[in-house]
Amino acid sequence: MSDFNLQAVLDKVQPVSEEALALVQSRIDRQAKPPGSLGRLEELSRRYVAISGREDIRAKRIYTFAGDHGVAAEGVSAFPAEVTPQMVYNFIDGGAAVNALANHAGAEVRVVDMGVNHDFNGLEGLIDRKIAMGTNNIATGPAMSRAQALAALQAGVELASQAKTDGIDLLGTGDMGIANTTPSSAIVAIFTELTPVQVTHRGTGIDDAALGQKIRVIRRALDINKPDPSDPVDVLAKVGGFEIAGIAGLVLGCAAEGLPVVVDGFISTAGALIASELHPHVRDYIFAAHQSVEIGHRHMLQRIGQQPILNLDLRLGEGTGAALAMTLIEAGLRVLREVLTFDDAGVSEGEGR
Amino acid sequence: MSDFNLQAVLDKVQPVSEEALALVQSRIDRQAKPPGSLGRLEELSRRYVAISGREDIRAKRIYTFAGDHGVAAEGVSAFPAEVTPQMVYNFIDGGAAVNALANHAGAEVRVVDMGVNHDFNGLEGLIDRKIAMGTNNIATGPAMSRAQALAALQAGVELASQAKTDGIDLLGTGDMGIANTTPSSAIVAIFTELTPVQVTHRGTGIDDAALGQKIRVIRRALDINKPDPSDPVDVLAKVGGFEIAGIAGLVLGCAAEGLPVVVDGFISTAGALIASELHPHVRDYIFAAHQSVEIGHRHMLQRIGQQPILNLDLRLGEGTGAALAMTLIEAGLRVLREVLTFDDAGVSEGEGR
Repeated sequence: MSDFNLQAVLDKVQPVSEEALALVQSRIDRQAKPPGSLGRLEELSRRYVAISGREDIRAKRIYTFAGDHGVAAEGVSAFPAEVTPQMVYNFIDGGAAVNALANHAGAEVRVVDMGVNHDFNGLEGLIDRKIAMGTNNIATGPAMSRAQALAALQAGVELASQAKTDGIDLLGTGDMGIANTTPSSAIVAIFTELTPVQVTHRGTGIDDAALGQKIRVIRRALDINKPDPSDPVDVLAKVGGFEIAGIAGLVLGCAAEGLPVVVDGFISTAGALIASELHPHVRDYIFAAHQSVEIGHRHMLQRIGQQPILNLDLRLGEGTGAALAMTLIEAGLRVLREVLTFDDAGVSEGEGR
Repeated sequence: MSDFNLQAVLDKVQPVSEEALALVQSRIDRQAKPPGSLGRLEELSRRYVAISGREDIRAKRIYTFAGDHGVAAEGVSAFPAEVTPQMVYNFIDGGAAVNALANHAGAEVRVVDMGVNHDFNGLEGLIDRKIAMGTNNIATGPAMSRAQALAALQAGVELASQAKTDGIDLLGTGDMGIANTTPSSAIVAIFTELTPVQVTHRGTGIDDAALGQKIRVIRRALDINKPDPSDPVDVLAKVGGFEIAGIAGLVLGCAAEGLPVVVDGFISTAGALIASELHPHVRDYIFAAHQSVEIGHRHMLQRIGQQPILNLDLRLGEGTGAALAMTLIEAGLRVLREVLTFDDAGVSEGEGR
């Protein structure tokens, strides 16, 4: 089906250099402020610089991946499936929240059709990587074939390479896909061995009855498909989604290319989790944008081993949290570049230094 | 000593209009996204618009108040007292973290000498509101006289009025003063009836022995001075600081002028707490920038009734957290201004709407 060599991509992933991290931190520690007093901001700049070798961000880009889900037919979402293509048009027109927040962050938004159940007729500005017109219903069988999962991963990997070629220094992920908290909850349940009850939440705002239905659907999806947690591509194919696969590919591609990537909320983190399970050092390149309201999210982040930067009760997706978190990485770099050392500022150092 | 009429300022403080808040929220709820899905960002824009009547921020300003503390002689800080004036010079030269983060946020920094133990000889760019060359040692008596506390409050109130005249739409607070976590811990202990052990932390990085000493010093300050929690000016005078009083005055002045104010970390919140105890509706105008590492901070915020916007393990002060939080208020406004409604975007609404 394709010449995509997943193993070759995985082989490119290197751990971020401990030496480079220590070098940045030693520079931060010479700045005129109590050691460690800027907390997480220091971690953000330390990791960004160690990954990229740069102290600035020339350009930022958010890829918002869209896809439809057969499982939407089970009544697991508060919104009808037609909203997926409607929101794609809205992204392209610049009228959505991710557009507003990307403007705020000085980032561009690129929208990728990974598998929306709609013919966009070559819509200008939309990146066409459509695998199919939506996934199959995971409550009755696998979401997609293994070949489709690999093709979707390939799309994400190639977009990371394209971004590198385009001189983008910081990437962000985003998602759009009605019902996509359902596959995301299934994915976290598989890797953490938690039950669907423990990782399933209200998505865009379903009531108690729909939440019960959603949990039953996820349970059925796991029972029928029996995804193998030691084979992340199997998990992706059986209970994933095309946009989730695109995100997984992008995150993997960023790690392979040495690009820092800001992972948005629950859906994006499901993609990042797939990528992290494929290679243990993918996590080194991930900045977790925020703590989502979705109860399964913290379990994903624990498994990946990254702390969220923001906690603003967001539950929108699209890349909105990624855009916000980018501004904090930028803030950390500003401190790194502009704050004087104790010597240069003529400030006395404290005890224990 | 002065013609300052505190009661006249307090009489100007009005609650923020519930009607105005509801009006902004109804506008947010028509935007094409699940209701409430932008969480705290919606609260930020709702409150900013209801307070200011504006949907943009024309200009932002952070006032960083500096003062010295007689209690520094008790060995409660990891840094020598000479660092207070050294950092004031650094702020004026633009080399400190608050300068970098204010640049990032597009805010200007104004530095106010409230009571630094140093003669700045009319240093250009420094606002001279010096009350005295530092406070007295609170471990042996009151920090300042009641008249001095009122004069320091007046300075802050007048700076808020000046900002209003200057067309500033969003204010921020910041502090510099070696040893100032000690009076701040004393202030929170008084209003919350918690013990010094429960509200005292390591400031800029003291060890266990110094922490024990700091707790003993605060206990002594409370025993000797017996501040009256029903009289916030008494608390301020007996165990406060000049920069804390300036911050309290600024926050009070913002509430009186109808200006939103972003309150930085532990020290700034001590000032905001004094202002909130003076009038119950001062809190309506406060945006709590972040959750400090200082253990007493969350008790202050609980008492004020505001949730921190960020939680980045910051413990620097200066106004650094305020600068960061300003960018999130701006992000919320960007969403309010730029995101299309369901109708305009041609997006179907969900259930329960």
